[in-house]
Amino acid sequence: MLNHGGLVKALIEQSIFAERLQIVQKAVSNRTTLPILSGIYVEAISDNLTLYATDLEIAIKTSAKAQIKKEGQIVLPAKLITEIVKNLPEAKVELVSNENENTLQIKSQQSTFNLNTLAPDDYPHFPDTEDTASFKILKKDFDKAVRQVINSASKDESRPILTGALINIEKEKIKIVATDSYRLALKEISSKNSSATQAIIPHRALDEASKIECKDIKITLSPNQAVFYLNDTTIVSRLINGQYPNYSQLFPQKFETTIVSNKDELLSAVKRVSILSLNNTPLKINTSSGKLKISAETADYGSANEEIMATTKGKDIEIAFNAKYLIDGLLGIDGENAVLELVDPLQPGILKSDEKGFNYLLMPIRLS
Amino acid sequence: MLNHGGLVKALIEQSIFAERLQIVQKAVSNRTTLPILSGIYVEAISDNLTLYATDLEIAIKTSAKAQIKKEGQIVLPAKLITEIVKNLPEAKVELVSNENENTLQIKSQQSTFNLNTLAPDDYPHFPDTEDTASFKILKKDFDKAVRQVINSASKDESRPILTGALINIEKEKIKIVATDSYRLALKEISSKNSSATQAIIPHRALDEASKIECKDIKITLSPNQAVFYLNDTTIVSRLINGQYPNYSQLFPQKFETTIVSNKDELLSAVKRVSILSLNNTPLKINTSSGKLKISAETADYGSANEEIMATTKGKDIEIAFNAKYLIDGLLGIDGENAVLELVDPLQPGILKSDEKGFNYLLMPIRLS
Repeated sequence: MLNHGGLVKALIEQSIFAERLQIVQKAVSNRTTLPILSGIYVEAISDNLTLYATDLEIAIKTSAKAQIKKEGQIVLPAKLITEIVKNLPEAKVELVSNENENTLQIKSQQSTFNLNTLAPDDYPHFPDTEDTASFKILKKDFDKAVRQVINSASKDESRPILTGALINIEKEKIKIVATDSYRLALKEISSKNSSATQAIIPHRALDEASKIECKDIKITLSPNQAVFYLNDTTIVSRLINGQYPNYSQLFPQKFETTIVSNKDELLSAVKRVSILSLNNTPLKINTSSGKLKISAETADYGSANEEIMATTKGKDIEIAFNAKYLIDGLLGIDGENAVLELVDPLQPGILKSDEKGFNYLLMPIRLS
Repeated sequence: MLNHGGLVKALIEQSIFAERLQIVQKAVSNRTTLPILSGIYVEAISDNLTLYATDLEIAIKTSAKAQIKKEGQIVLPAKLITEIVKNLPEAKVELVSNENENTLQIKSQQSTFNLNTLAPDDYPHFPDTEDTASFKILKKDFDKAVRQVINSASKDESRPILTGALINIEKEKIKIVATDSYRLALKEISSKNSSATQAIIPHRALDEASKIECKDIKITLSPNQAVFYLNDTTIVSRLINGQYPNYSQLFPQKFETTIVSNKDELLSAVKRVSILSLNNTPLKINTSSGKLKISAETADYGSANEEIMATTKGKDIEIAFNAKYLIDGLLGIDGENAVLELVDPLQPGILKSDEKGFNYLLMPIRLS
């Protein structure tokens, strides 16, 4: 048998090992065309165990303190090692590779596993990271921005650009934008930056980065990749090439109607009406004499009508939206109130909150 | 438009209405061949609102106190009414039918829904229930029995009898049995009964009955149906026709080896080893000098070995089982210890607990 294993001998806490495996697992490929990508690359050096996985679109690397008795590299079958370590008791786990048999022994108390390993030389290298334009923000601000924006990215792979989010670094702020052409979410975060640049990042990379807990996040954008630094974890993502749509021209300059209402009340009412907004039946919004009416009607099933208290300024209006997109926008609002700004029934509406920095543009549905 | 609606006017608490809709919803058909069965039959009489649904295999009826202002019957689209009421605020819900338009108005605070109704005359009658052989037990004993037995019922529709559970009423006890021919779960509950009878009940009826909270359950078996009385709720299920396999002859009369171990320890070890018991690789159990070894090995992935403390009596043995079936059996054990009784590697093993009344028979896998 060809010996492909480096010699590894290491001791690590079960809970830490399990947590780290869970993190890199997200980058493991489901494609069977490249069997090596079903593995997790494990490197034992000085007093660190580093785990790394990639599906060639995204790469995740994470390190944890461990007692290393012999340095080396091995590649382990991702699903098996993750499942095994998750189920081991809370105690030290010993890893000892057998280089003649290309196996790794995993020992903890009365449990012993011998796993066949894969060849570390076959595993693609972790992408080189170079510091070009970068910025650092509080992780909680990043997480909130991702949560507010990510649902608006398109799931339709026929226009790849819209499946990502645009990150735009300006001198005084960072803008994060996502749209599927029916609605657009725009988040602005104040931040002093030395250089201006932009990139379209696959929404999956943002999603995975937002799931990892830490205090700050540093993001580096170079021409071909984005790198997310999250404490002991680094995520590298390819970028989506192409020209992001010029969204700023979509925002109306002047509004004729402004409706302010309690966000939770509006969200509950819209959710209830959406039950009758089947098969893309439009959800109608209607203002008259300081009241906000929300309704939907289908010939087959019936109708839903809600009325909530609202402060309206300007002209009365009747306008219709897709119920799901309206709900997504409302879910992005953190303040107490929701503010809906409208021009007329055929122009986009803007949903925002008391808090500055989040704008949600919503295309209306033409009523027949 | 043909008027099919009885006049209904009723007032009911949202939380109660929502809970009752959730219960009958389980009997609503997913088949589109009979559109009327996508509805819930609602009857308002004296001071009760009774909901009823059936898919012709199982029928569920439940009643709740309500203020009835006009008595009558209507049929409502199940999914819509359930979803609407679940999302209404906690307050009284008013139901008012409009017999000219065949609609029902649902009102609560600022919410108004008008739902198209279906024709109550088209809805199949709730099955007649006659008191033949019946027994009554504590609901918690029933729930436990269902949980211990139900996983052993077959999912394979090609042998319909095995998809049900046998309920056998004897003078001094009730036996509940399920098997898919690879393992068999037998539960005995002490109970004085005047008549002896038996029936094969679809596992779904037992499942749904176990989900409803109440103190006692009364079960009536007649030649064609089983009826479960659960406070304000009644479930009627058809029976499965045919001869249930004669299972008692499967139980070995004499054992050569008895292994007693801590149930939780054994379950954890078996779960871990089962990770390597891929593609039906057998899980091996091995006793020698007071130790219990559990292991699995596949050429492609590797091996798992566990050793746990156990008290063994009789001959040492090596025997193999399907890992999932062994886990199912252990999950049925409530006591502190698991007792495994074995004859030889080719005869079924019996898994039981300190507690009397539960026996789990497990066919071995022949080791090559």
